[in-house]
Amino acid sequence: MTANQESGNEPSPLALVPFVSVAHMMELINGRGVERVLREIADYIEEDFKNWPQFHKQARVAAHSEDGVIELMPAADAEHYGFKYVNGHPKNMREGLQTVTAFGVLAKVASGYPILISEMTLLTALRTAAMSALAGRELAAPGATTMAMIGNGAQCEFQAIAFKALVGIGSVRLYDVDPAATAKVVRNLANRGLDVVSCASVEEAVEGAQIITTCTAAKRRAVAVADELIRPGVHLNAIGGDCPGKTELAVETLRRASIFVEYEEQTRVEGEIQQLEPSSAVTELWQVLRGEVSGRKDAQEITLFDSVGFAIEDFAALRYVHDRVTAGAAHEELDLLADPDDPRDLFGMILRAQT
Amino acid sequence: MTANQESGNEPSPLALVPFVSVAHMMELINGRGVERVLREIADYIEEDFKNWPQFHKQARVAAHSEDGVIELMPAADAEHYGFKYVNGHPKNMREGLQTVTAFGVLAKVASGYPILISEMTLLTALRTAAMSALAGRELAAPGATTMAMIGNGAQCEFQAIAFKALVGIGSVRLYDVDPAATAKVVRNLANRGLDVVSCASVEEAVEGAQIITTCTAAKRRAVAVADELIRPGVHLNAIGGDCPGKTELAVETLRRASIFVEYEEQTRVEGEIQQLEPSSAVTELWQVLRGEVSGRKDAQEITLFDSVGFAIEDFAALRYVHDRVTAGAAHEELDLLADPDDPRDLFGMILRAQT
Repeated sequence: MTANQESGNEPSPLALVPFVSVAHMMELINGRGVERVLREIADYIEEDFKNWPQFHKQARVAAHSEDGVIELMPAADAEHYGFKYVNGHPKNMREGLQTVTAFGVLAKVASGYPILISEMTLLTALRTAAMSALAGRELAAPGATTMAMIGNGAQCEFQAIAFKALVGIGSVRLYDVDPAATAKVVRNLANRGLDVVSCASVEEAVEGAQIITTCTAAKRRAVAVADELIRPGVHLNAIGGDCPGKTELAVETLRRASIFVEYEEQTRVEGEIQQLEPSSAVTELWQVLRGEVSGRKDAQEITLFDSVGFAIEDFAALRYVHDRVTAGAAHEELDLLADPDDPRDLFGMILRAQT
Repeated sequence: MTANQESGNEPSPLALVPFVSVAHMMELINGRGVERVLREIADYIEEDFKNWPQFHKQARVAAHSEDGVIELMPAADAEHYGFKYVNGHPKNMREGLQTVTAFGVLAKVASGYPILISEMTLLTALRTAAMSALAGRELAAPGATTMAMIGNGAQCEFQAIAFKALVGIGSVRLYDVDPAATAKVVRNLANRGLDVVSCASVEEAVEGAQIITTCTAAKRRAVAVADELIRPGVHLNAIGGDCPGKTELAVETLRRASIFVEYEEQTRVEGEIQQLEPSSAVTELWQVLRGEVSGRKDAQEITLFDSVGFAIEDFAALRYVHDRVTAGAAHEELDLLADPDDPRDLFGMILRAQT
């Protein structure tokens, strides 16, 4: 028995909530193709960013401990409410655990009923890359063909494929302090229509790149790419600096760049711009996507997407998965919601389950 | 396939999170007996309330809409982190949906890994009653035998049984504006060792009662029990007034009573005491449970537990369920956490799932 409604033998669809497991998420990605999924998630993010003023927004709700942080990231528009649970525990890796795990829930605002529970470790990797590529499409120099990738960890392949799919890059130049990480990316990106170049240094990686993605396991205030290596016209996609005290660009670089963020209130605390005075000028990306503010202004401008990850991106990704489930994607049904025939008779429902 | 770790055929226990469905929760309650479960949950709440100063506490995180509210209620101590998702949509009942549905998650603070997902509609009903009875045990007149219950909705039976189990009452006197609700409670409480009396009015219900529980669907500022009906020595257990603008006692009653709350910051906004000036005296119940402050002082005192429901109660209830699961209670395992062999190779994990 997986449903609990009492009348008749039909399970109440109201008691059941679709659940997309890790295995089902992989099936969705592989069945549809990762490039297509990244493009589609980017479309959902773009749609939600264009509706930005309609959203109920707030900074994440964090519980910090000695070993890490557990966060809830809620967001809602008039129709849907979503939140993500996500942890960050750097020491986990030493114990054979993942540093970051995540899952999320989508619900209907009108009834408060959850309509989807989904794994979000993989989905977050996808939405982060889709978000970066969406920003890159607006901010990188037209005709950009080459991206340098400093830091070749778990997010690297997703970024490369998203920038191919949405921005049209044909070449990625990889550098990581650990050559094994670079070798892993080279292996995983084989036969995907990308020219993949392993580089021995940051200097070599950024040569000829119109886009530089930094996605390092930045510890404290690091500088992943020295300021003098960042040439006019480059678009910087900074992913790794995403919590207080953790940055990966030099403050000099920030002062030379036009800075774009997801949600200023959150990025001031978590992003590269925590290094700047609170009054420094930044632009929220939704304004660019709505056409209210221009993105890149000229060929010499250095643009920076200071990405920390915002709840609306998770919201969009959950909407996307929910639409796939509705269209038939593989999932389970969880008997999550007590559904007595008479809402006032919750106790009677338990009693009758005895027989 | 329900687990996703790549090496070998053994499912990785790290990828799996136990899930307690509605059916499994009913099995747990019926298998153990509802009185025992209520007593045990009260023990867990008492333990956590005694550790109150060690908790990471915050008011609930609410998203309000025209039709209702969706809330996240997180709490954490040094070992565990928990949160509850709960909605409140009064209009749902007209559409054949539940007004309130809930589920919750327990996680390890040290790793950030979720270790339990549980239905919480039933569990919230249990913990609310366990909390009330725990407060009643400290605050009601010694030897109290009779409880009046104004409002005979979904929470009523749980309250009656919890007060029997923890406070030792032998008689409940029921009143509801809808006689069908009272009839339902009479039916459900048959043969449970309680003397159950249906009453035709509030006046009749409170006759001879040492404890008065108000659990009405209070709309706006209602008065479920007129002030002149509340005699010296009574303990008031006010459950129904639990959000801004929603109360069920007269302000005159509040001024005569010694008031006990869960978490003052939250109760000021949501409880009966929203009717009082913010500086009015209240006592947080954990101080009574720790023996730092006395509960009832004399036989003439009117005591009031102004209950709105606090995250630590859900936390305690989730700990309880987790311990039952660990000890073998029925549950499913959800493939919720992506667990690649190499944490940096999330993309490779997806690739390898294709074959």
